[in-house]
Amino acid sequence: MMKFIENRARRVAELYGFKEIMTPIVEPYELLAAKAGEEVRSRMFVFKDLGGRNVALRPEFTASVARFVTAALQTKPKPFRLFNVGTVYRYDEPQKGRYREIWQSNYELMGSNRPEADAEIILLTNSLMETSGLKNLAFKVGHVGVLRGIFSQEKLEEKVQNSVMQLMDKKQYEDALKLVKDAGASKNCMNTLRELIELKGNDVFGIVGKMQKCVEDYSLAVEATRNLYDILRLVTESGIKMCITIEAGFARGLEYYTGVIFEVSVPELDVALGGGGRYDRLIELFGGEPTAAVGVAHGIDRIMLALQTQKAKPDICEEKTGVIIPIKEELKGEALRIAQTLRGEGIPVELEVMGRKVAKALEDANRKNLDFAIIVGEKELKEGAIAFRDLKRRTQSTVKIEQISKIAKET
Amino acid sequence: MMKFIENRARRVAELYGFKEIMTPIVEPYELLAAKAGEEVRSRMFVFKDLGGRNVALRPEFTASVARFVTAALQTKPKPFRLFNVGTVYRYDEPQKGRYREIWQSNYELMGSNRPEADAEIILLTNSLMETSGLKNLAFKVGHVGVLRGIFSQEKLEEKVQNSVMQLMDKKQYEDALKLVKDAGASKNCMNTLRELIELKGNDVFGIVGKMQKCVEDYSLAVEATRNLYDILRLVTESGIKMCITIEAGFARGLEYYTGVIFEVSVPELDVALGGGGRYDRLIELFGGEPTAAVGVAHGIDRIMLALQTQKAKPDICEEKTGVIIPIKEELKGEALRIAQTLRGEGIPVELEVMGRKVAKALEDANRKNLDFAIIVGEKELKEGAIAFRDLKRRTQSTVKIEQISKIAKET
Repeated sequence: MMKFIENRARRVAELYGFKEIMTPIVEPYELLAAKAGEEVRSRMFVFKDLGGRNVALRPEFTASVARFVTAALQTKPKPFRLFNVGTVYRYDEPQKGRYREIWQSNYELMGSNRPEADAEIILLTNSLMETSGLKNLAFKVGHVGVLRGIFSQEKLEEKVQNSVMQLMDKKQYEDALKLVKDAGASKNCMNTLRELIELKGNDVFGIVGKMQKCVEDYSLAVEATRNLYDILRLVTESGIKMCITIEAGFARGLEYYTGVIFEVSVPELDVALGGGGRYDRLIELFGGEPTAAVGVAHGIDRIMLALQTQKAKPDICEEKTGVIIPIKEELKGEALRIAQTLRGEGIPVELEVMGRKVAKALEDANRKNLDFAIIVGEKELKEGAIAFRDLKRRTQSTVKIEQISKIAKET
Repeated sequence: MMKFIENRARRVAELYGFKEIMTPIVEPYELLAAKAGEEVRSRMFVFKDLGGRNVALRPEFTASVARFVTAALQTKPKPFRLFNVGTVYRYDEPQKGRYREIWQSNYELMGSNRPEADAEIILLTNSLMETSGLKNLAFKVGHVGVLRGIFSQEKLEEKVQNSVMQLMDKKQYEDALKLVKDAGASKNCMNTLRELIELKGNDVFGIVGKMQKCVEDYSLAVEATRNLYDILRLVTESGIKMCITIEAGFARGLEYYTGVIFEVSVPELDVALGGGGRYDRLIELFGGEPTAAVGVAHGIDRIMLALQTQKAKPDICEEKTGVIIPIKEELKGEALRIAQTLRGEGIPVELEVMGRKVAKALEDANRKNLDFAIIVGEKELKEGAIAFRDLKRRTQSTVKIEQISKIAKET
């Protein structure tokens, strides 16, 4: 099932034009920690390698991808559409939907600051979830630029801003507001924030309109709400029906977000199945040219859990597969030769390797739900043929060796 | 290119009936170290997790697969054909073909002690290497049972045996022989070993015959040579042409091998591209029922290096891919809607997300070697159509939106 989702993720990457890349699992601690945020940093697997260097297991993909882009793609024309799939590591208390080794698929669209890039990333997430077989998907969308815009105009230090965002991510709004107030924010700012945090709902354009009015004294924040509006309009115009809730006070754990942020979930599970957003300054922080970027990571384990919870039956279409059974020891070489020929023609076949009698081997093939069996016996072999058994229709016929592949494909 | 090889490995798994499984990268140190051998143990990435437990990055797959079989499959009917692909870790000095993070594909056939199982693993390795595009493949084959058979009959302790095998793996034959002699081996044993070590060559059945004669005083060793003969006979009878060298003194680094062992290489590279063998006692050592098993691991990075060295052009067949370009900002939503429709029908398309003019975007599409472009303009849209440009034939025509997918597939 995990493999099914991984393959869906790979297929979605192809359909949206993303190229798969591979980045290391063990990286220098400094690279991974640079912009991860305190929460993530404290849960990293950190150790010294035999050369005494501080290394860690990647807690997410984006830092490695950013480094890759900085090192390898800087001179290439943009945009870059990059896809990863693999494991990331976080030292959480294991519980339902929270593991320490996490399978993720990760997509980054780099080089475009336009709302259509954000829309693509949101739509791609919806495609993956829907084609995996999930129902009742719910998207939560916010925009870090709204809060950051207010904080910047109030001249809050970045470090304070990050702490506030961390608290808001954990929905500790009162603590967050206290921190803002202590940092010397204006009364107007405090009122604006209190009002913003309350703004949420499914009437997406209505909520965005209210956000815009609420932040009208903060020009950067107003700009952010316009950007959010443009993204949502494109998502709507794509014709794909999605259930979206806007939350003006929504924040995410990673420090590097600058624009739209979103998460997707299903009602049956109280953890997000995927989340992402825009981070336009990250590549610069890794020493590259300023590069606009938007990305998303999906939890493959969590999607699997959600599918199980929803009792979804994903449409896994398997290839016709057969087994080759020699009726006696001396015919094993012949059986192997036929196996090699069929595999060379693209037909999956198992070889009977247990030395079982035909009846036993057929029983096993039925149990494994195989499609056909090729029984290699002396009598048929003399005429260059074998006994071909269709395991689904329970029919058997003598077939010339050179015609097996044709018959197998038609089974 | 790495992805191409990974996909080949996955395809070979399908063709031979192996099911892909995923095992953790971080495992308890004890599990991974148990039967790895001193050489591998000393090069493991070991550290403490935040709970103070000793953990390590897997240096190979087999221990994890053995644990998986013991825990999850013990009551299931055999054989099991299991496939992994992913990273393993060894703290080597990085040099050509030797990395610290290593991409491997790994196949294990468990539950059969028959020579056809060994033959399948060798043939599968050949299939992967050949279909990846490699030429001049050379297989080196030996049998641990021959040496172990002699040592057992000479009553050498297992620890001494392991040390001798390690030395032989490094071709330090004199040191190995000294160790055997110091352990009290007979004069006959020393002579037999000296003779065995010299036995190697391409005349596989001739060499195996000589081995059999050489070890005639050691019944377990004789049995091992018979097993080697049976395996080689099946490989030959499969009809697949392979260049095989038998080396009677061949040993491999991992301690757990009990039967045939082999490696594959190309003349252009002095590291093995893959290697494996039989290990019939491993599952037992992990607390499971005695389970015969044979397996192989292939170095994906090394296969890639070998392909580059041989300047091979793998036959990578890519799907037809297009780009969708709105001629003005207001049509982005329409462009997205068409993109979603096509992706839903299984046609990969990129969306123009840089806001470029049509000419610029087409230039980029040509540079990326895309197959077609869909230009979304007002005039055509009024008739429910778009301009479809075949980028390879350099032709353009007006196509109804509902017919794009048909035309795109025929491009």
